[in-house]
Amino acid sequence: MLRIPFDEVQSRIAEVLRGLSFNGERAELCARLFAETTCDGVYSHGVNRFARFVATVRNGSVDPAEEPRPVAQFGAMERWDGQQGPGNLNAWAMMARAVSLSREHGIGCVAMAHTNHWMRGGTYGWQAAEAGVIGMCWTNTMPNVPPWGGVEPAIGNNPLVIAVPRAKGHVVLDMAMSQFSYGALESYRKRGELLPVDGGFDAEGKLTRDPAAIEKSQRLLPVGYWKGSGLAVVLDMVAAMTSLGNATHAIANNPLRETGLSQMFVAIDPRGLGDAARMEQIADEVVESLHSSRPAEVGKPVRYPGENTLRLREENRRLGLPVEEAVWEEILRM
Amino acid sequence: MLRIPFDEVQSRIAEVLRGLSFNGERAELCARLFAETTCDGVYSHGVNRFARFVATVRNGSVDPAEEPRPVAQFGAMERWDGQQGPGNLNAWAMMARAVSLSREHGIGCVAMAHTNHWMRGGTYGWQAAEAGVIGMCWTNTMPNVPPWGGVEPAIGNNPLVIAVPRAKGHVVLDMAMSQFSYGALESYRKRGELLPVDGGFDAEGKLTRDPAAIEKSQRLLPVGYWKGSGLAVVLDMVAAMTSLGNATHAIANNPLRETGLSQMFVAIDPRGLGDAARMEQIADEVVESLHSSRPAEVGKPVRYPGENTLRLREENRRLGLPVEEAVWEEILRM
Repeated sequence: MLRIPFDEVQSRIAEVLRGLSFNGERAELCARLFAETTCDGVYSHGVNRFARFVATVRNGSVDPAEEPRPVAQFGAMERWDGQQGPGNLNAWAMMARAVSLSREHGIGCVAMAHTNHWMRGGTYGWQAAEAGVIGMCWTNTMPNVPPWGGVEPAIGNNPLVIAVPRAKGHVVLDMAMSQFSYGALESYRKRGELLPVDGGFDAEGKLTRDPAAIEKSQRLLPVGYWKGSGLAVVLDMVAAMTSLGNATHAIANNPLRETGLSQMFVAIDPRGLGDAARMEQIADEVVESLHSSRPAEVGKPVRYPGENTLRLREENRRLGLPVEEAVWEEILRM
Repeated sequence: MLRIPFDEVQSRIAEVLRGLSFNGERAELCARLFAETTCDGVYSHGVNRFARFVATVRNGSVDPAEEPRPVAQFGAMERWDGQQGPGNLNAWAMMARAVSLSREHGIGCVAMAHTNHWMRGGTYGWQAAEAGVIGMCWTNTMPNVPPWGGVEPAIGNNPLVIAVPRAKGHVVLDMAMSQFSYGALESYRKRGELLPVDGGFDAEGKLTRDPAAIEKSQRLLPVGYWKGSGLAVVLDMVAAMTSLGNATHAIANNPLRETGLSQMFVAIDPRGLGDAARMEQIADEVVESLHSSRPAEVGKPVRYPGENTLRLREENRRLGLPVEEAVWEEILRM
């Protein structure tokens, strides 16, 4: 494993993007988001994912020059068309727009159709929290999980992000609706490990912790069985209806052709309601109550969502971003 | 099991409520919500729950005369104080307010502090959908689930409701953050059945499907293990911060003294953005895609959230509400 300075990673990725006709500013932001994702420890969606992103630019799924276009507006609510632009740049622009709306109206909501994979969803949660507001966003995906009661992928794993700003460390939840991603299954399989809990069904329809059996059956388990399956369905419906975009069933089930996604961005700026100091205190008290609750293992305190990110971010900034040699060589050759 | 006509159930409950000094209109609405909950098949939170509700009125946890009071307003966002009024009446009023805000601003949000248990959360989802808007609401609860990595109840099971209006049948998700409720564990135990999937930990800290072992350990499993635990934490934070109310850790861990809850109500009326007909079509297409996906068991098609409700509602309207004899006798004696 290499350790490469953050800035070096960002500038090499930006260089590749400029070669793919991303303009200067967009190349820098897109590259920064990839580097930050790895820096924050979400290795599956950062630098490791860049080659696949480049492939989707080259095959025309992602159009580097396109930006979201406003379609309709009513009060604190807007509908935009992502025009098949780069998923992370589109999502960044839409969360920024939702944040502006929230400053004006207390709450703001943007629905975007026809966008691309946003890479790490948590990025836009951190973005909202850095802006001092509560952020909530979700995306649909290609069909990659069977619904509860079904055997074929027909719902998306539709990540949901909820972020709460806090001076002592933002609280950021970023959860997909499958218990494990295909990337996670692959990692466990390569390490020769079983999953810590059931992750799907085997070929006989039995719940299993064997990652290879689930990769083969394609029967990933939704979070909470019927519950996560239902949540994935309503998140998909709301995003597709409000944006007038595609629902999961209309999206190509192919990672390199997964385009035309629908996403929702909600920002809440409750400071207009007053008492910001008390709000901050309430958030801190929740964190303290978790930290003081009795842990299952001595010395391993209960953590809040996103708590580990700050530690990894600091470590990876200091030591350099961990990147596999083969991955970095591929990026250098691009 | 008795079968009692809907109107008879509602009018007897309203009579009891008037005796507890609910005024006429409020007694009727509160009674109707209890009857509708049973009619829709959510037996744990309807008529079966009424005696416990009455006990919380009698012990002062619920104040029948109080209504929510507006505290602060900014654009499409409002903060209210529930003043310890009846939880279902308070929540009904706040979702109605969020719906009005959404008609004016496209999206509306109301945060309410100091309220009481809202009984069935789905009620307010159906309410929004009947009004033709997307509804989203959640509540915190007393600490009744251990966080992931912890062994003592320290987070709430914080139900989340998302509802999508649809002429052919609203789609309404109503999910608590524990895989099973204590009510569900009790039902399985009484029937001498194991849970269909793991529902918590036994005294040795092993995952188990034995309902009695979980009732004893009090270690209910969050939906999706670490994921539902994190979701419960952020839902609690957002509700408590925005409303300036109590977070879960500050709520008494006692079903008869569980008061001072914090809740969020969000309504989205995307019709202001135009193309309502296309939105309806998109929702229908999602339903059709689920119905046409291959089921695990022949003849048992995949269902959408809330689909079963309409069938039960019709059946229970026709045959009368199913109420256990002892429950009904207690209500008649009140």
